[in-house]
Amino acid sequence: MTSVDEAATGRRDRKKRQTRDALAAAALRLVAERGLDQVTVEEIAEAADVSSRTFFNYFSSKDEALIGDPAVDSARVLAALHAAPLEVPALDAIRLALADMIDEMQADAGIWVLRMEVIAQNPALLPRLVASSTETERAITGALAARTGLGPDDGYPALVTAVTGAAFRVAMIRWAASRGRLPLADLVDEAFGGIAAGLPDPRSTP
Amino acid sequence: MTSVDEAATGRRDRKKRQTRDALAAAALRLVAERGLDQVTVEEIAEAADVSSRTFFNYFSSKDEALIGDPAVDSARVLAALHAAPLEVPALDAIRLALADMIDEMQADAGIWVLRMEVIAQNPALLPRLVASSTETERAITGALAARTGLGPDDGYPALVTAVTGAAFRVAMIRWAASRGRLPLADLVDEAFGGIAAGLPDPRSTP
Repeated sequence: MTSVDEAATGRRDRKKRQTRDALAAAALRLVAERGLDQVTVEEIAEAADVSSRTFFNYFSSKDEALIGDPAVDSARVLAALHAAPLEVPALDAIRLALADMIDEMQADAGIWVLRMEVIAQNPALLPRLVASSTETERAITGALAARTGLGPDDGYPALVTAVTGAAFRVAMIRWAASRGRLPLADLVDEAFGGIAAGLPDPRSTP
Repeated sequence: MTSVDEAATGRRDRKKRQTRDALAAAALRLVAERGLDQVTVEEIAEAADVSSRTFFNYFSSKDEALIGDPAVDSARVLAALHAAPLEVPALDAIRLALADMIDEMQADAGIWVLRMEVIAQNPALLPRLVASSTETERAITGALAARTGLGPDDGYPALVTAVTGAAFRVAMIRWAASRGRLPLADLVDEAFGGIAAGLPDPRSTP
């Protein structure tokens, strides 16, 4: 590609990302104001100043605009986990695998804070979220089992996956409570550090 | 009370427990066979050989018969957590607080294995389950904050609560996979032990 082509591709990707973010932000804002059942795809597209047809170029449904396409996140985290050198211990490998996603979440902090409020207010979104996180956790557990060479009866891969997932969610909740001001990466590091240390009771720490 | 009164009370409590278990088992069995929307309270009562009125003495809804009254479990775990001596470190205090519930779950293993299958097959039950576990986790986080004397900005209580909750769920899944044959208490001990040790990668353990 010539540098002119590259500039065009970069501009196109940036514009796509902007449209996608505008649609997600519009969906979240409207649902936060009116509730899940009171918002249509047409209204979301309208609020983001695009057609409904454009909406469906980015998202397959209203729910997907609100909580994202879990398959995409899952595939990215998994690819990053596979890319982590085999000698890296399991906990550190998972922290590495989350790094890019955490950076992007921080860049989209406003959308994420709103997203977490919308999820808290609309439990109807939960089955989809739980199903997608179950799917992701199963894939990560499989990848950890392969890394560590443990058999299917060993509880370690599933335990590390579930525990780091819980730690990540706690960090996200603290992050949202700070309206995205505390860096998510620091909050995740703190939680992962606590886990690596065995969660010692702070009263018994000298 | 005289010993005759005591015997009568014991018998009454035992019969109540039996009726409650029979209703829960009937609800779970019917829903496992037909799906959530294809089973009525009348059919559950009929299958347990009691009237619908008796059903409502035990459960306020079909969903409650399927997944239990989360407020009851939550209150019990919390009471046990408050009863744990203050000098017991947080992780151990939570393990202690779960002990009675774990024993009862083991005694009702058949019902629990079926319950976990029904939940996996019927995502419509998830919002209720997530709401109740969110409620329970909030209460446990508060109790841990009080025990440890940590302020509301400290992430430790929420982290311990979420991580032990994740560990407990992983143990439950392994337990159900063994059809209740591996003792749940042992699986929970193994998971809590792994957490206390900081989840070391088994490849780096000598």
